[in-house]
Amino acid sequence: MADFVALERWLEDRLEASLDELRRLVAQPSVVAQSLGVDACADLVAGMLRTRGFRVEVLPTEGSPVVVAERDGRSDRTLVIYNHYDVQPPEPLDLWTSPPFQPALRDGRLYGRGVSDDKGHLVARLHAIDAILAAQGELPCRVKFVVEGEEEIGSVHLPSFLARERDRLEGDACLWEFGYVDAQDRPQLHAGLRGICYVELRVRTAARDAHSGVGGSIFPNAAWRLTWALASLKGPDERIRIPGHYDKVRPPSVRDLELMEQAPDKTGEFRGLYGVKRFLRGLEGGVALRVAEVFEPTCTICGITTGYQGPGSKTVLPAYASAKVDFRLVPDQMPEDVFRGLRAHLDAQGFDDVETVLLGGTGPGRTDPDHPFLAMVARTAESVYGAPMQIVPMIGGSGPTHSFIDILDLPIATAGMGYPDTRAHAPDENIRIDLYLKHAKHVVRLLTAFGES
Amino acid sequence: MADFVALERWLEDRLEASLDELRRLVAQPSVVAQSLGVDACADLVAGMLRTRGFRVEVLPTEGSPVVVAERDGRSDRTLVIYNHYDVQPPEPLDLWTSPPFQPALRDGRLYGRGVSDDKGHLVARLHAIDAILAAQGELPCRVKFVVEGEEEIGSVHLPSFLARERDRLEGDACLWEFGYVDAQDRPQLHAGLRGICYVELRVRTAARDAHSGVGGSIFPNAAWRLTWALASLKGPDERIRIPGHYDKVRPPSVRDLELMEQAPDKTGEFRGLYGVKRFLRGLEGGVALRVAEVFEPTCTICGITTGYQGPGSKTVLPAYASAKVDFRLVPDQMPEDVFRGLRAHLDAQGFDDVETVLLGGTGPGRTDPDHPFLAMVARTAESVYGAPMQIVPMIGGSGPTHSFIDILDLPIATAGMGYPDTRAHAPDENIRIDLYLKHAKHVVRLLTAFGES
Repeated sequence: MADFVALERWLEDRLEASLDELRRLVAQPSVVAQSLGVDACADLVAGMLRTRGFRVEVLPTEGSPVVVAERDGRSDRTLVIYNHYDVQPPEPLDLWTSPPFQPALRDGRLYGRGVSDDKGHLVARLHAIDAILAAQGELPCRVKFVVEGEEEIGSVHLPSFLARERDRLEGDACLWEFGYVDAQDRPQLHAGLRGICYVELRVRTAARDAHSGVGGSIFPNAAWRLTWALASLKGPDERIRIPGHYDKVRPPSVRDLELMEQAPDKTGEFRGLYGVKRFLRGLEGGVALRVAEVFEPTCTICGITTGYQGPGSKTVLPAYASAKVDFRLVPDQMPEDVFRGLRAHLDAQGFDDVETVLLGGTGPGRTDPDHPFLAMVARTAESVYGAPMQIVPMIGGSGPTHSFIDILDLPIATAGMGYPDTRAHAPDENIRIDLYLKHAKHVVRLLTAFGES
Repeated sequence: MADFVALERWLEDRLEASLDELRRLVAQPSVVAQSLGVDACADLVAGMLRTRGFRVEVLPTEGSPVVVAERDGRSDRTLVIYNHYDVQPPEPLDLWTSPPFQPALRDGRLYGRGVSDDKGHLVARLHAIDAILAAQGELPCRVKFVVEGEEEIGSVHLPSFLARERDRLEGDACLWEFGYVDAQDRPQLHAGLRGICYVELRVRTAARDAHSGVGGSIFPNAAWRLTWALASLKGPDERIRIPGHYDKVRPPSVRDLELMEQAPDKTGEFRGLYGVKRFLRGLEGGVALRVAEVFEPTCTICGITTGYQGPGSKTVLPAYASAKVDFRLVPDQMPEDVFRGLRAHLDAQGFDDVETVLLGGTGPGRTDPDHPFLAMVARTAESVYGAPMQIVPMIGGSGPTHSFIDILDLPIATAGMGYPDTRAHAPDENIRIDLYLKHAKHVVRLLTAFGES
């Protein structure tokens, strides 16, 4: 029987040392989209795992390497822990209060790019493992880490990697890379993630920009071509116009709706944190907004760049334009189908001059919200958070859940230190130190229960 | 009777000194859109005019100052010479072969931002004046310079300035700031310019960017709002959809069409220099393309900026988006009407969240192509270029012709050193030294003839 009081005191006493380790990890940039520091960060993570007595391999893929680590435990039960060491680009830099790769502690929060997504989760889990090893000399169960380096660009090479390494990665369940508490600090367990299909659209209409007084009436304009192509994808009614796009959409089940009914209301968070004045399609809140948030496919313009973007005016006719577009996918939409549908749609609409480049894609993935592993993850949170986790069938974000569920045949559950103001993917990304500690405590409980199950 | 042989030898002998003066002027940045070096450049121009014995004043406006200079001549005939000392932004900097504000001579061409548009024209004209003064001690006619500093942003404050200073600027005719030869070095005289209405569209949908996994289905997206607003302005049929936009468009006259029939064919230039593969609306060349180029209103997206624009992917939902849009106006469209129509259209289409900011505007302006002043400008070119100038009723670009024609009641004629590869507004802007010299020679002839007329 584990002495949780002693284990938790250990976690508290050594918190500073753990945060120092996190600071070192955050200070190592690993912006996969910009090929910045990726290999160095993989090596750093591998070293951190070796220190804990894990057998570690840094396995190459066609993209970023994957760090795989394993350590046996008292029982033969195997928990796979999925994390990623890559981070989002830090831009726009001028909106950061302190530099993104110089972690800074302010008001009980640690700020830095990747501190929440996902380096804090990895290091807090190592902190939990350290506590157990210090007290017991061994882990309650076998633990396998899969720490990839392409999550932020759609885990491009992870599915083929998991298929190739399936035997090595056998297990009984998977702890997902992130997790959230709601605005009242109630922990949420998400049983599924949407998929994603991330595409860049590119148009070149001429060899170089022209004076708009010369070409305005007679030259094709890349900015116009792109604008029209984008407008053909979705109209102000928010309905995606690609033929067949909704064909494979599975609506939420009665059980899903029952759970969504109990899920926390985030309208206050959306209005307060993001300053959103009104939601799309007249949604005002309640279960309808929550269901729309996670059970619907999306088509989001993430960025557009073309022509002159500086102050004042420049009378130029752009020869090149590009946009980044992210489609979130719900069961059973698959990225390759969506990408094929997009191309066919653009061709049919006369936009064969608009090039489509697939930058990343992964299918949606769900575990049955009533799976016993999820019940265990939820239950073991109770003594730490004062209440068991609330089970929410889906979250709006994406990750390679599809591969873990389909290829490795693992149930997945989220748990972590994210909170409404954590600003993942945005300037001033941060974690709350109290939630960091709570997550470590929860992982101690979970590993213990998992070993005994 | 002027000794043109001696005058032309003088121009040739002292060409290097004149180019040195041009280099000094180009080395002084004067990017009005970026408030860079404007006042310093005005002072530099004023000094250059004082050196030639002009009475000079640097007159303030609410924007850039206007340099006004006057010198009497043998006759009471007054030629107003319009130039501007401001230049386009130099971006994109990485496409310049040599730095934009460090003039560089290569293969008989001088490169630098503003070397053609419009500093070369100003200095070549001063070179012509120097030659006459050196030979004759006085000018054949009175010359008044109006050198403004906001041409590249639509001459925002020039109309009210001209109205205020009307008496001081009285004259008989106006030599315009630029002019072109065609691909066969045949000089062109343009008798009119289109107007312009330059607008920035801005949308803010939230206080800050959101994770696209969270907001994709429920948050308004600034990039989408802007895309749809832009798409409402013009469709792939190139027809501008703002109600009433074409109401005041005056079609070209029979005489215009006759002159356009004789105007040079530029399809080779468009295909070769710009790499344009096909023209809009199936136009292939001939008079139809030439008429479309200059006699039609345009709506050009000059730039769009929103969200993530770096390499790879970033799953962000942009809170802010903006676009620069340039409307070229033909007689009798006026910028204030177009701006009002745009606003009303956006409101009617449900885009009251899209802010419109007028960055500059000027009406179109034309002189009768058969005006005797134009005939004189054309005729005096013959001995320099081997042929008289070809009179073309309109050019696609814009400038404050409307104000010079309507407020000062002057006929205008273009003449200058521009040529198809001059790259005004683009990287590697340049002039050919041979055309620089020819323009100076032409101005010597023109001033002489004008004084005698």
